Amino acid sequence: MSGKLGVLAGGGPLPALVVAAARARGQDAFVLAFEGQTDPGTVMGVEHAWVRLGHMAEAFARLRAAGVGEVCLIGPMRRPTVAELRPDWRAMQALARIGKQYFGDDGLLSGVVRELEGEGFRVVGVHDVLTALLARAGNYARHAPSPEDEADIARGIAVVQALGRVDVGQAAIVERGVVLGVEAIEGTDALIARCAALRREPQGGVLVKMAKPQQERRVDLPTIGMRTVDAIAEAGFAGIAIEAGRSLVVDAAAVGAAADARGVFVFGVSAA
Amino acid sequence: MSGKLGVLAGGGPLPALVVAAARARGQDAFVLAFEGQTDPGTVMGVEHAWVRLGHMAEAFARLRAAGVGEVCLIGPMRRPTVAELRPDWRAMQALARIGKQYFGDDGLLSGVVRELEGEGFRVVGVHDVLTALLARAGNYARHAPSPEDEADIARGIAVVQALGRVDVGQAAIVERGVVLGVEAIEGTDALIARCAALRREPQGGVLVKMAKPQQERRVDLPTIGMRTVDAIAEAGFAGIAIEAGRSLVVDAAAVGAAADARGVFVFGVSAA
Repeated sequence: MSGKLGVLAGGGPLPALVVAAARARGQDAFVLAFEGQTDPGTVMGVEHAWVRLGHMAEAFARLRAAGVGEVCLIGPMRRPTVAELRPDWRAMQALARIGKQYFGDDGLLSGVVRELEGEGFRVVGVHDVLTALLARAGNYARHAPSPEDEADIARGIAVVQALGRVDVGQAAIVERGVVLGVEAIEGTDALIARCAALRREPQGGVLVKMAKPQQERRVDLPTIGMRTVDAIAEAGFAGIAIEAGRSLVVDAAAVGAAADARGVFVFGVSAA
Repeated sequence: MSGKLGVLAGGGPLPALVVAAARARGQDAFVLAFEGQTDPGTVMGVEHAWVRLGHMAEAFARLRAAGVGEVCLIGPMRRPTVAELRPDWRAMQALARIGKQYFGDDGLLSGVVRELEGEGFRVVGVHDVLTALLARAGNYARHAPSPEDEADIARGIAVVQALGRVDVGQAAIVERGVVLGVEAIEGTDALIARCAALRREPQGGVLVKMAKPQQERRVDLPTIGMRTVDAIAEAGFAGIAIEAGRSLVVDAAAVGAAADARGVFVFGVSAA
């Protein structure tokens, strides 16, 4: 590790966990918080600065002034509209380089990673800091996928990877061979709610979450947590398959306990 | 044409239009209506029989008894649950042959076409009977896609074809480069309603409908009509792109008039 860890914080609880993990291993943290994106609780008791998403020159200056050597991008970001973005000169330069890749999440984030590296920062993945988060292969709870569920998982992998290749979405729900829904920008919670209303069979239904085949592994990995398990159980589906080694499970013990209590499976799968 | 035209009728108004077109060219029609699928109005004043979807032996017998030589599958079918299907021996035989392809719409329908051909029926596409329905290239109304819309159409084509290759969906909505939603089994109306709530830009947004690259061209072509134009306009999107030569426009004159009245474009595009 080199110098302070700069946490470029999106929403949700993960950025605060990254700060705590850095401190636990003896590294100071600096949070770069983004207006309208970062949970205000994330910056409490941590050195930080608030910036606008489009103010890239200021963001780099803040990181440098704080003595940040390596950075970690973590937590979901709501993509701004063109009007909201109001990019400064440095962001304009970056956008020109990113070009059409701007429109896919992976293309945009890979471009941001390249800009950070060009400024001399080392970019680390959340799994480098919070190694325990990375999904492992196999069952997280007592329940295991049935042979029908396994077939649904295989179909889901093929569908999500096809979508991923055109840089759209990281999830699909498959029920007894039929693809009920595929994710674009609506997010996994909305996907689950929608597919709950489209269910047709009394049993089955699997949420499959996979990283994109070409995905920059240090940013925006598919993530599940207890809330995902609850949503899948409420919807009446059989379980969740996530990509081992390329997705995150927040609090694996709680996820396993929730899956046991609800009677659903959570399965880490290795994509070929 | 050989003998009577057997119309295997899904829902909506298209089956009745096919019957009328057959009669207009001097061919008698026989409607095979499916319980829970066919609009009861479709069979009024036409020789017909009602059958259950899973009763394939009876369906073939009815077509043969009516002297049907060629058949046309037309109108959307709600896919039955496994419990609803209750296949007879002939349907079981067909399902065994169709195998895993059952789970994609195109795989299932291609299998049904092969079964019909194996029984000696000639399968014609709706565009063979109702030639005027097939989408043509170019603008259907005064409004034309802007350069930004054209970029969205190109992105939509890439996304829908990627999905189509894994036999899921025929539509996506793209707004200024960002894919707001992709269609699985929810249908285009639900896709439009969902994406209306996900809009982020004051302008733009294109519905792109494409046949699947490998699609059996005689069944289940993407279809739009006046109602689609109204839904897109209500949602505040800029227009619709459909695949020329491989999709259907019901009542092109009314579609053009509605698009003019609403200020949206309807554009027939040729996919490379």
